[in-house]
Amino acid sequence: MRKENMVHRVIIQVSDLDKVDGALVSCRNLLDDMPDAEVEVVFHQSAIEAVRRGTPREGSVMDLMSRGARIVACKNSMRTRNMGEEELIAGVSIVKAGVGEIVRRQAEGWIYLRL
Amino acid sequence: MRKENMVHRVIIQVSDLDKVDGALVSCRNLLDDMPDAEVEVVFHQSAIEAVRRGTPREGSVMDLMSRGARIVACKNSMRTRNMGEEELIAGVSIVKAGVGEIVRRQAEGWIYLRL
Amino acid sequence: MRKENMVHRVIIQVSDLDKVDGALVSCRNLLDDMPDAEVEVVFHQSAIEAVRRGTPREGSVMDLMSRGARIVACKNSMRTRNMGEEELIAGVSIVKAGVGEIVRRQAEGWIYLRL
Repeated sequence: MRKENMVHRVIIQVSDLDKVDGALVSCRNLLDDMPDAEVEVVFHQSAIEAVRRGTPREGSVMDLMSRGARIVACKNSMRTRNMGEEELIAGVSIVKAGVGEIVRRQAEGWIYLRL
Repeated sequence: MRKENMVHRVIIQVSDLDKVDGALVSCRNLLDDMPDAEVEVVFHQSAIEAVRRGTPREGSVMDLMSRGARIVACKNSMRTRNMGEEELIAGVSIVKAGVGEIVRRQAEGWIYLRL
Repeated sequence: MRKENMVHRVIIQVSDLDKVDGALVSCRNLLDDMPDAEVEVVFHQSAIEAVRRGTPREGSVMDLMSRGARIVACKNSMRTRNMGEEELIAGVSIVKAGVGEIVRRQAEGWIYLRL
């Protein structure tokens, strides 16, 4: 089967702070299930709080990065919450609009997962 | 890069009334980020209330339409809430099943975004 | 139009127990709207509780199966809740990771719907 040899590229959207712990677990489960997948996780809307430096989820987010996932923060969502770049967990990237990033990645052939 | 010249067609699903304000902001952010994108937003389940005429979100929904987005209401969700066609914000289209519309658009090559 | 003759394959993700009743209605609406579609519904995270045998949603889940939908439970989510295989509604399949299943189906060309 071709799919067994394919490297999947997966763009993950995390929107809701009240569901963010389940989302982080699902990201880890995906990396366990597909160790070769290229994974990018976009945090936007209220879930942007999960990539704030010094908060309880910092360990989980760092763990995803250490396993090769790219973590992205939405600038629009940061602006709404007066979050500065220096308040992000080290290593987190910024995009102008999280939703635009998700659309562009899909246009490039990435698979979409909304947690 | 080809993608810079591509016009993206994006089908957006809005399901949850308790998350609808964030979803409307994200729609606006997408139109800001991709002014040339063709955007259709489907409201279904509890979020159908956001396209009811005379409610606080009417301005935000009208603004999306004025910027070229097509706004679609799910007939199944309207029926569940005894919402008549005359209760919709002017300009909102109706489809028989919101989920069917989302599947058909993707089959036509549209990019999916679930807010 | 080619799409009228196409059989759609749809992979549906159900994550949130607090939204699961709306999700089950949307699944039924999709089967009504697209009787020929091939549909697989993955229950994971808190929504795994909806496929537990003897709970109030058993009838709705059985109804989806009787109409041809394949129902899938995420093993990771079952393990988190100490749910054994014998506690699942009869006929429900198990996958190692719900998120992996959703990604693989999309890689095979299935259309994604997140309820």
